[in-house]
Amino acid sequence: MDKKIINPFINATLNVLETMAFIKSESGKPYLKKDDIVQGDVSGVVGFTGETKGTVFITFDESSILKIVSNMFGEEITEINNEITDAVGELTNMISGQARKELEEVGEVFHGAIPSVVAGKNHELISLTKGPKIAIPFKTDFGSFTIEVALDE
Amino acid sequence: MDKKIINPFINATLNVLETMAFIKSESGKPYLKKDDIVQGDVSGVVGFTGETKGTVFITFDESSILKIVSNMFGEEITEINNEITDAVGELTNMISGQARKELEEVGEVFHGAIPSVVAGKNHELISLTKGPKIAIPFKTDFGSFTIEVALDE
Repeated sequence: MDKKIINPFINATLNVLETMAFIKSESGKPYLKKDDIVQGDVSGVVGFTGETKGTVFITFDESSILKIVSNMFGEEITEINNEITDAVGELTNMISGQARKELEEVGEVFHGAIPSVVAGKNHELISLTKGPKIAIPFKTDFGSFTIEVALDE
Repeated sequence: MDKKIINPFINATLNVLETMAFIKSESGKPYLKKDDIVQGDVSGVVGFTGETKGTVFITFDESSILKIVSNMFGEEITEINNEITDAVGELTNMISGQARKELEEVGEVFHGAIPSVVAGKNHELISLTKGPKIAIPFKTDFGSFTIEVALDE
């Protein structure tokens, strides 16, 4: 999996969080995952079909998502509730939509399925794709989150 | 969403569990979900694209999946570990594949994305589809599990 695939996800994430939540996040170096597990407190999950199949996870720790959604709504949210899970779904939709649009421009066409949201302290996510899995760590002033892109080849 | 859509998932589930794990399960009455939440200990998640988009969750409680996978492997497994999550992925793949095949026979063509697996005591799953969500409860002698089918129209 090359930068052509990864960069659109990084760009879309930075852009969506800044536009929707006025939060500047910093992307760390993408790394090849050695295990299958992503761990977090609330996550967006979206599958793709198309030229190849794949999965994207966006996994937030509690402190980062509380701040992001509090900023989106202009009110302080102090626990993971329905507003948070709805917002994670929306953010997942927007990030995967923008990334797919940018991928289309370089000739990679994917169809996104409908996102799902997972909530649960320290849940684990495992994608059953057969290809390499790339994780991109992001930092904000309020906590961290990770995007994992897993394609099936 | 009518029986034409639901029944293939029920048939595939009963068939896969009996074939793979020698477990007879009993399906309860499908019901329209009023809230968005599915709760369980380990789940398979698979998105669809095609004529309509949708999501299927297969959510097991700990006791049912420990018994199912112990039977599949012929050895007793006492905690949710990698073997369990791998097996849940395989079961999800088989159930969604069989169901899609039966759906194709009645003219409903779906393309399945790659399944993901979620592990975490009492995690919650929320599908962002816009249409009705149908849950089908299943009982075994060893615990219960639920399938939720959510389509986007």
